[in-house]
Amino acid sequence: MDNFQLFNPVNIVFGKNTIGELPNLLKDKSNILFAYGGGSIKKNGVYQQIKTALSHKTVFEFAGIEANPDYDTLMKAVEICRKDNIDFILAVGGGSVIDGCKFIAHAAKYKGKNPWEILLGKPMKDAIPLGCILTLSATGSEMNTFSVISKRSTNEKKAFSSPLSFPKFSILDPSITFSLPERQVINGIIDPFVHVAEQYLTYDVNAPLQNRQSEAILKTLIEEGPKALKNPTNYDVRANLMWCATNALNGTIGKGVPQDWATHEIGHELTACFGLDHAQTLAVILPAVLKYEFAQKKKRLSHFGQVIFNIKANSDNKIAKSAIEKTENFFRSLGAKTRISEYKISKKALKPIPTQVIKTAGGKKLGEHMHIGEKEISEILDLAFEKY
Amino acid sequence: MDNFQLFNPVNIVFGKNTIGELPNLLKDKSNILFAYGGGSIKKNGVYQQIKTALSHKTVFEFAGIEANPDYDTLMKAVEICRKDNIDFILAVGGGSVIDGCKFIAHAAKYKGKNPWEILLGKPMKDAIPLGCILTLSATGSEMNTFSVISKRSTNEKKAFSSPLSFPKFSILDPSITFSLPERQVINGIIDPFVHVAEQYLTYDVNAPLQNRQSEAILKTLIEEGPKALKNPTNYDVRANLMWCATNALNGTIGKGVPQDWATHEIGHELTACFGLDHAQTLAVILPAVLKYEFAQKKKRLSHFGQVIFNIKANSDNKIAKSAIEKTENFFRSLGAKTRISEYKISKKALKPIPTQVIKTAGGKKLGEHMHIGEKEISEILDLAFEKY
Repeated sequence: MDNFQLFNPVNIVFGKNTIGELPNLLKDKSNILFAYGGGSIKKNGVYQQIKTALSHKTVFEFAGIEANPDYDTLMKAVEICRKDNIDFILAVGGGSVIDGCKFIAHAAKYKGKNPWEILLGKPMKDAIPLGCILTLSATGSEMNTFSVISKRSTNEKKAFSSPLSFPKFSILDPSITFSLPERQVINGIIDPFVHVAEQYLTYDVNAPLQNRQSEAILKTLIEEGPKALKNPTNYDVRANLMWCATNALNGTIGKGVPQDWATHEIGHELTACFGLDHAQTLAVILPAVLKYEFAQKKKRLSHFGQVIFNIKANSDNKIAKSAIEKTENFFRSLGAKTRISEYKISKKALKPIPTQVIKTAGGKKLGEHMHIGEKEISEILDLAFEKY
Repeated sequence: MDNFQLFNPVNIVFGKNTIGELPNLLKDKSNILFAYGGGSIKKNGVYQQIKTALSHKTVFEFAGIEANPDYDTLMKAVEICRKDNIDFILAVGGGSVIDGCKFIAHAAKYKGKNPWEILLGKPMKDAIPLGCILTLSATGSEMNTFSVISKRSTNEKKAFSSPLSFPKFSILDPSITFSLPERQVINGIIDPFVHVAEQYLTYDVNAPLQNRQSEAILKTLIEEGPKALKNPTNYDVRANLMWCATNALNGTIGKGVPQDWATHEIGHELTACFGLDHAQTLAVILPAVLKYEFAQKKKRLSHFGQVIFNIKANSDNKIAKSAIEKTENFFRSLGAKTRISEYKISKKALKPIPTQVIKTAGGKKLGEHMHIGEKEISEILDLAFEKY
């Protein structure tokens, strides 16, 4: 097991009717930016619950944070924060709104001229504190320091991480997710699945507890995911999926083990260039990365295949191959596409992607062995393009 | 799944040579109480490493915190804290030293005349911050708010929990545990095993992720425990056991599920009255509780038997019975005793225990169904006394 540090001070408030805890959680705050995305929270009653809970506060609303939150949109919220002395940001939404608010929180306190520099790794010393009400569970942003921001004007998508991004609290009420559109339910299963895969499908460093914690999440996603699609209002199923998604990226399972974020790094560029949902990109890229990295990942893939899919065969080779197939089948069984060619994207349009991925990665190669460069990304994209 | 709150801000610094992080972690502290137990840290080099790391601080040493830390001992440290304006307590040891320091931290700030009242549930508003260097992994105290304190003058053993008890940091260097005596290694396997059992061997509330997270720890303890006894200096084995122990009682696996702390509550009294090690009491009481609560726990015991011990049989009844046997066998295979009668304790001496347990519990009955009273405890003790 490798050395590690684990620190995660997010206060998770999980369960039915937990929005009612809001006044307690915001006791000492006065000027609040209430930020959200589209209008869905006005349809499912969440907006009104929040307005009631905040009735004794000065509240500034900021609506319209889009999926893959855009720098230009967020900078409008930054202006409000500066002008109105916002002392707390309440992010109400899924990963995009929360990621966007993490950026707003930092950019509002940024002293330089160009807050995009935060995405370029400029260390930050101050940020407005934020809290979350999760309406779409997938990214795990509610319990980590990560934030991914898009800049549509330049087709860029970059991530930053700051200890100041930890939400002070995150309210997770699974019943809020009952009314999600099917596409987002599917994304909410695939995104955490791939988060686990990127921390687990690498190589062994003798850390059986972390491996089993990863397997616990994968098994539960495979079991509960299809149930959520069949019975969207089953509370326990939604609760199990929501808790899986948080655990998939709150740091625990990746401690002391190698990690491989190649699928995410390639996927981000597909979103930036073609507007695919984040999870849609993961579903097409993960199987291709696993095939391309077969030799390096074979042993772990075989273990994964036996534990997760109960595959029996007489060689690691066979089991590992079957495990990749079954992963792709699982994604497809949910209704996800698993090949780029299933979207309206031409092979030619993929040409600039490898260079862009490596540029975004600051020139570093990808993967747990740091050996995936432009050439390798190009071959991974070829595999991801192949007809199913 | 039940509603829950999860908040755990302990900064875990895990791995080889991590004591070297101490100066960074104590940057803004000046008057430090360096508290430890017996002299083992002087033999394994830890004492000298700490002295070196703290060489620029004002350090007050307090040695001699015993196993099952005693109120009278701890009150001597409280005096030092008050007299010398201690602003940080560094607990170096296992659960006893850490639990003791949590009490010292609170008692030093206690305004009333009798700090024992902290153990009686008096809510606390202030405590000296503390950090830990773990030398014996078992209780999980390094990443939670719990503390169990003994009062030998009255044969009492009581627990308290306070958010102010969260260590600011805990340094976990598995190589420190290489030189532990065998008895403590055994205790360090059984204690976390029973911590998991008390949060897992209850009844189903449809929380498969938490169940699997529990099973992940149990499987790893069963796998790694015997290896630690055979090869005491195998780093990875020690690291895996240490990380299991922390995860067994850092709150995660028990979130949203019923819990049953009957084994601990009965066990504490056996320690208070007869001086048995904490884990020794758990090894004799858990099998008896499982037998006594067989009807209520049968379904979960059957699941546990299948997943953990791979038991195959044609009824829940048979599998559940076999699972209890295999649990006891596992404890015995490590070298632990599993019956009270294997210690020099007479049946007559057990007579006052049930009354004492319920008194310590503030008159409340025990177990996940809150139905274990004095009569039931007495019958559990009979089962625990039976010859193996």
